[in-house]
Amino acid sequence: MCSANAVPTAMPAAKAVNAQRLEARLATLARIGATPAGGVSRLALSYEDALAQAEMARWGQQLGLQASRDAAGNFFVRLAGQQPDAAPVLSGSHLDSQPQGGRFDGVFGVVAAFEAVQALLESGCKPIRPVVVVAWMNEEGARFAPGMMGSAVFAGARSQAAIEAVTDAEGVSVKDALAQTKAWLDELQQSGQCPPIAQVATGMPVHRYIEAHIEQGPLLERAECPVGVVTGIQGKHTWRIHVYGEQAHAGTATRAERKDALWAAMDMVQAMRQAFEDSADITKFTVGRFELSPNAPSVVPAQVVFSIDLRHPDTAELSRMAALVEPLCMAQRGPCEVVVEPLSSADSLQFPAAMQALLQAQAEQAGIRTMRLASAAGHDARYLHGITPSAMLFAPCHLGITHNEAEFARSEDLYQTTQVLANALQALACAPLTECGERAESVAAAALPSESSA
Amino acid sequence: MCSANAVPTAMPAAKAVNAQRLEARLATLARIGATPAGGVSRLALSYEDALAQAEMARWGQQLGLQASRDAAGNFFVRLAGQQPDAAPVLSGSHLDSQPQGGRFDGVFGVVAAFEAVQALLESGCKPIRPVVVVAWMNEEGARFAPGMMGSAVFAGARSQAAIEAVTDAEGVSVKDALAQTKAWLDELQQSGQCPPIAQVATGMPVHRYIEAHIEQGPLLERAECPVGVVTGIQGKHTWRIHVYGEQAHAGTATRAERKDALWAAMDMVQAMRQAFEDSADITKFTVGRFELSPNAPSVVPAQVVFSIDLRHPDTAELSRMAALVEPLCMAQRGPCEVVVEPLSSADSLQFPAAMQALLQAQAEQAGIRTMRLASAAGHDARYLHGITPSAMLFAPCHLGITHNEAEFARSEDLYQTTQVLANALQALACAPLTECGERAESVAAAALPSESSA
Repeated sequence: MCSANAVPTAMPAAKAVNAQRLEARLATLARIGATPAGGVSRLALSYEDALAQAEMARWGQQLGLQASRDAAGNFFVRLAGQQPDAAPVLSGSHLDSQPQGGRFDGVFGVVAAFEAVQALLESGCKPIRPVVVVAWMNEEGARFAPGMMGSAVFAGARSQAAIEAVTDAEGVSVKDALAQTKAWLDELQQSGQCPPIAQVATGMPVHRYIEAHIEQGPLLERAECPVGVVTGIQGKHTWRIHVYGEQAHAGTATRAERKDALWAAMDMVQAMRQAFEDSADITKFTVGRFELSPNAPSVVPAQVVFSIDLRHPDTAELSRMAALVEPLCMAQRGPCEVVVEPLSSADSLQFPAAMQALLQAQAEQAGIRTMRLASAAGHDARYLHGITPSAMLFAPCHLGITHNEAEFARSEDLYQTTQVLANALQALACAPLTECGERAESVAAAALPSESSA
Repeated sequence: MCSANAVPTAMPAAKAVNAQRLEARLATLARIGATPAGGVSRLALSYEDALAQAEMARWGQQLGLQASRDAAGNFFVRLAGQQPDAAPVLSGSHLDSQPQGGRFDGVFGVVAAFEAVQALLESGCKPIRPVVVVAWMNEEGARFAPGMMGSAVFAGARSQAAIEAVTDAEGVSVKDALAQTKAWLDELQQSGQCPPIAQVATGMPVHRYIEAHIEQGPLLERAECPVGVVTGIQGKHTWRIHVYGEQAHAGTATRAERKDALWAAMDMVQAMRQAFEDSADITKFTVGRFELSPNAPSVVPAQVVFSIDLRHPDTAELSRMAALVEPLCMAQRGPCEVVVEPLSSADSLQFPAAMQALLQAQAEQAGIRTMRLASAAGHDARYLHGITPSAMLFAPCHLGITHNEAEFARSEDLYQTTQVLANALQALACAPLTECGERAESVAAAALPSESSA
């Protein structure tokens, strides 16, 4: 049994993070894929996504830090530790956005981690463990579904071959898009716009993972609280439903003759809306993608493909509802055929209490108020949670509006959330290694501030 | 008052049309834009559309006939008459198809008219009037809505400027697509794959218009009748409905907070399905195009645009239902906004009795059975009907399946329909001109076979 990985209680506070630099960097990345309405369209493995990585690689170069990428398209900037082979502390989020998405979703967590590393460097503290900033490939799943691809492969939950086979609406595969991104980054390097980026193997031992993100809900803002300590992530099941009817002429085919894929798809969706309606308004049922073929005004639709995104914080209730999807689709298919394709099913999860306590203790030490709350949205931390003790910090998000160009977060809240992140990363990276092997460490064995001081 | 435009009752029968040539030409055009499942995707103003025109221009050249195009993209092949300035007899249909459409819809009418002209040439008969084969631009309206653009401009029902401003789903305007088609045809000419195509002014005096087409319904096949004489065209109203909601995160926004454009659009469509359901199954209500924005699986839809195609043979009943569209959309919009954009409204029409009689008489003279039936689908003949006495012939369509790769028509039926067309065109083109001006002729004044022989 390993001894406690004790954090020195009298460790100096991390240097204050630089609020102006944080804001400037967010503004720089917001210009890459900017939309006229003030949002960002920076789809996974797009040219804009590559440009954002090149920008971050330049920031790393200015601090003497090496950027690297793995085969799954995850992007890293590494601060070496005194023990270079020790498992690093990992922090970050993602740089890809939804189409017409916001300027903070994902990118804040990457920029906050980078700022935390720079603050650590400037504090003069020499971390014992490496600290690695990460931007996971395709968290959003907008172009290639489902999302969280890079973190899933990193954590061993999906294979490289499985994600490479996924195609976007234009038929481009993840495999080809990864090669294209690599080619763009090579071109940017040749034209002097990007420093060299090392290629690294996918996956590495990780000591701890912390992800900062905007809340994407209204709770922190309503509570006027600058920082949220996330207790866990709401469960989510997703499907792709294929409805097969028969193409026909809008002016000649009678209703009795038609096999209208749209009518069948609508009947399915309406039945699910009814079945999933709860008076407490906790269930989240969304059909975000809905596509007809051939999608022509005077043609009876031959085919519909639509997505289902179903979430509920209670795993049992989510499972009960998930079991209804296929029978409801079958019952409402009318004269059409239907194929129900499950894409992902994630139960609700709880982050380790010790990790939550670490964040809360660091916030308290810095005099920053926090509150505990669950994440209604999914995050890469879900997959990291499967391989290492993980945690998340939330910054308030104005009115809870997200996946929207109007998404907004206040600089002072982002600053305070980044400060808590920086302090926590410093505490983890500067704590002496235990005498036992890195891989043997477990959550239970990690003595974290609230416990060591309790 | 003009005297009768008498057709000689003892006029020699037109030469038999060549069934093998007809079939071979249909097969040649079916290869241009062929789909693996045996259909055709040859959207209006696509490269395939230009290739089909180049192919027809070559056929014309082999017979010494000049091809021409007007600014609206309509394509003509002209057989001169002994009176070159007399208003021509016009016949044709369209070469564009639906996406994954069939091999006969439109193209049959163009090939049949060309075959009729060739049979006329081979008969040794020198027509008095010119006979012009036409392929109208964008009948289908699949890429640029609404359809029948070329014939609408030709007939003065829409302006060139109005159609040029229409854009496709990629934002390409008809104006730019017309220029692109012209450029493709010029390139084909330079590389020797297309003879010169003259540019002609849009619109011309027309003596008579006859359009052959597949029925796109099952009635002729059920009656085992090879040729239909069309009595008129069913009325049709079309709309584009814009639903504006609010983009939000699928995992965080509560049902109460959401303005889900998809839910609102579905409620509108379901309300219309109920309102337009008639036990006699005569009403044709189709939503063929339905598009979400941003159309991403984990984003609550911000916007939906969908099409409505509503048809009924009874003009009063069609008007009654059409008046319900806007109120139903408004009533079902929920927390969203809706804009109801009417695109087209065409009442039911009847072709002149004299024109129907001409076709029937020509069929009887050739010993070919016919039946009278109405067209449930819209056709370019609708616009030509507004400027000149017009008529349509239908060939049977297997099971009524159309706008579908499985669309099929039997060669022997197409042959007989073409024969009736050839005979009717010859009768019209070879009849002596009246002593009064071309433009003064009216339907009532045109003495057609069934009347002159009555």
